[in-house]
Amino acid sequence: MRSIFRRSLLVSGLGFLTLTAHAQTTAKTDSVNIRKIYDEALLHGQSYENLRYLTGRIGGRLSGSPQAQLAVDWGKVTMEKLGLDRVYLQEVMVPHWVRGAKEKGEIKPAKGKGISMNICALGGSVGTGGKLRAGVVEVKTWAELAALPADKVKGKFVFFNRPMNPVHIETGKAYGEAGDQRRNGAVEAARRGAAGALVRSLSLAHDDFPHTGAMRYDEAVTKVPAAALSTNGADELSQLLKADPGLTFELEMSCETLPEVKSYNVVGEIKGSKYPGEIIAVGGHLDSWDLAQGAHDDGTGCVQSMEVLRLLRATGLKPERTVRAVLFMNEENGVRGGTRYAELARAANEKHLAAMESDGGGFTPRGFNIEAPAATVQRIQQWQPLLRPYFSGLFSAGHAGTDIGPLKDQANALIGYDCDSQRYFDIHHTAADTFDKVNRRELELGGASMASLIYLLSKYGL
Amino acid sequence: MRSIFRRSLLVSGLGFLTLTAHAQTTAKTDSVNIRKIYDEALLHGQSYENLRYLTGRIGGRLSGSPQAQLAVDWGKVTMEKLGLDRVYLQEVMVPHWVRGAKEKGEIKPAKGKGISMNICALGGSVGTGGKLRAGVVEVKTWAELAALPADKVKGKFVFFNRPMNPVHIETGKAYGEAGDQRRNGAVEAARRGAAGALVRSLSLAHDDFPHTGAMRYDEAVTKVPAAALSTNGADELSQLLKADPGLTFELEMSCETLPEVKSYNVVGEIKGSKYPGEIIAVGGHLDSWDLAQGAHDDGTGCVQSMEVLRLLRATGLKPERTVRAVLFMNEENGVRGGTRYAELARAANEKHLAAMESDGGGFTPRGFNIEAPAATVQRIQQWQPLLRPYFSGLFSAGHAGTDIGPLKDQANALIGYDCDSQRYFDIHHTAADTFDKVNRRELELGGASMASLIYLLSKYGL
Repeated sequence: MRSIFRRSLLVSGLGFLTLTAHAQTTAKTDSVNIRKIYDEALLHGQSYENLRYLTGRIGGRLSGSPQAQLAVDWGKVTMEKLGLDRVYLQEVMVPHWVRGAKEKGEIKPAKGKGISMNICALGGSVGTGGKLRAGVVEVKTWAELAALPADKVKGKFVFFNRPMNPVHIETGKAYGEAGDQRRNGAVEAARRGAAGALVRSLSLAHDDFPHTGAMRYDEAVTKVPAAALSTNGADELSQLLKADPGLTFELEMSCETLPEVKSYNVVGEIKGSKYPGEIIAVGGHLDSWDLAQGAHDDGTGCVQSMEVLRLLRATGLKPERTVRAVLFMNEENGVRGGTRYAELARAANEKHLAAMESDGGGFTPRGFNIEAPAATVQRIQQWQPLLRPYFSGLFSAGHAGTDIGPLKDQANALIGYDCDSQRYFDIHHTAADTFDKVNRRELELGGASMASLIYLLSKYGL
Repeated sequence: MRSIFRRSLLVSGLGFLTLTAHAQTTAKTDSVNIRKIYDEALLHGQSYENLRYLTGRIGGRLSGSPQAQLAVDWGKVTMEKLGLDRVYLQEVMVPHWVRGAKEKGEIKPAKGKGISMNICALGGSVGTGGKLRAGVVEVKTWAELAALPADKVKGKFVFFNRPMNPVHIETGKAYGEAGDQRRNGAVEAARRGAAGALVRSLSLAHDDFPHTGAMRYDEAVTKVPAAALSTNGADELSQLLKADPGLTFELEMSCETLPEVKSYNVVGEIKGSKYPGEIIAVGGHLDSWDLAQGAHDDGTGCVQSMEVLRLLRATGLKPERTVRAVLFMNEENGVRGGTRYAELARAANEKHLAAMESDGGGFTPRGFNIEAPAATVQRIQQWQPLLRPYFSGLFSAGHAGTDIGPLKDQANALIGYDCDSQRYFDIHHTAADTFDKVNRRELELGGASMASLIYLLSKYGL
């Protein structure tokens, strides 16, 4: 299916010199048009004010929540104001997990007063059904857990305390390496008969914020509650355990999973002037964890994706291929929106030239990660020089994104917007993921670099 | 003087193949050693905790202030703890301007109540001697000022309201273009008989922080007071002037210039194991404006420069050339420390292989700006591939820094540490330049990239 879109600029009836002159003119035009996109973004960008509304007026918007529905309504209205060719919703059923009113953790030393801990339930966890008090056994690896005698685990909290590795320059790599504790901690602890799981927050910062995030159960294994400790809290618990291995932990969480809820992806599009059947999708996820405002995760990706359409409109750069912004629902705990989008595209026999995602925060751009055959990656890399003046010219092969992942077999290329990653995991899935952490210029520059690559894709195809 | 240090790796008695094999082994060793530097910085970096102390315990430290002296003492003690070969002070006389207790601005409309404005004196301004109330005339360019009839300027405040241009990707370029208003506004206004100057803050953010910074007088022209308005305040004043051109502005500032004070550069060095007479200096400026803590400007440059020495020590990478960290005094309002350093180096007949400066904030590294003959720039650019895995491989020709500027004729290369510039001018010279704006990883990565290039310089020379 991919080959039908391949058109090489180099395969041409023109002679070499003519082609070179033509290529030069083309590069000049592209350079001028990309400058127009950046000027518009830096002078009149609307991402930042859109994000202020989404984060400040709607706030955290976990799938199934009333705020998620408000966000859908807001996304639709905001796109309708852009004067697009089409704005519509895609219905999708989503999980509905709620945190509930009670969320408390306390270390109970063998002697002396309890020590209150900042904790939060991991997303999808069962509640504790009142207070759950148990001993604690600390592990750093799955091998350590496997090696523990049964009586050391049974009825205890397994405390997963492997830190993210700070030596990785890409923080995402450290996140990837440590994330198995959060996702699988509860089920693996329960398999050994544990009462629950306490997980060190996935963060490279040393602070008091617990980080939530998705975890999973296995229907064949008892569901035990799972909570995150802040990095400081995890260090403290580890320290206390050394001196007082008999301490207990008291956890109380009233979170629960309610019946699924009908929700929506929000879609807006500009029809391609020459090849309307060739689609370039660009999106972020509209849902966010409930602890904060979902600013960098992923309000920024949503407002940038809508801004791509606005920038193309405002600069008068009519795309030859169809450009579609998608606000995906339920990336955080199910990827139902991304899955549904791909299903509907397949059912409608839609042809995706490319799908782009912004879900690494709204930080200073670096470039893009491209998931495609090597030849396609190289073809896209030819455009690097056009983005280098904007410090956005680093196009690498790599994982593109979660919401566009289900399109893998339907798109010539999946493209992840890549930006500076140093601060992202400090605030990711915490109460600190708020609007004030987003810098206006960094955000608008990101939208401009996304729009620039999409302009090129829409002009030249793949 | 430069040529004596030139040694080309390519001019060698070895045959091509041998050289290539040698070069490969060398590149491998360098790559491993640079990885060691980064590991040490990311696992055990001390910049962040040093900065916490400098900003939190000492705070703003304008030249001549008691805090500046505390910072000198701190710098010396901190370097002494590193076990260097030599730590010493360089005496230098510095200006001593003080803000004083009174600093108020108010718009007085023709009718109705006064509107209080966030203002601050520009550094070096004379005071108002009580309240100074006058009409306001707004200009955006020097040509507009020159074209005004004398009676429109005489006895008024000239309001310089040309914003920084947001379309520049490099914020420093926008700063450079707008900075003439702050530096020369008062003297040019006074030349036309004005009573004072009000200057729009040099910032790309829209907020309520006034930005201070250096301004100058001409001894032949009456010294009139100069204050900065926040960007929001400047917009408001401009708007009000349109409706009410007869409004007045009341300014009260008790700032003054006191007699010069003895102060110091703080210097620490590791002697080169093979070529101790060839010096690589690396520095930031120890003084800062008084409104805040001087975190990004330039506490970060100071702690990074000291960290370069610590990283070389901790990794056991004994430099073949002498590496010297310099905490320069008085960059902000006089560059006396930088000037003095170069004078003393010349007097002692010291040979500077290179001088590096970090004074663009402690943000995510990009690379370096190199001020040197083209051949030297190219030679340094050969090392780009070694820093690219750390996103610090962008080595460009460009302005290197203010404090090392006086070394221009004495060093083979001046090198400016280059980092992401998007947020810098939001907080530059304001009360918002505080420790919490600095990200630990971004800061430590910067020190590591500086240390890596210095390791290469110390090994290969220039």
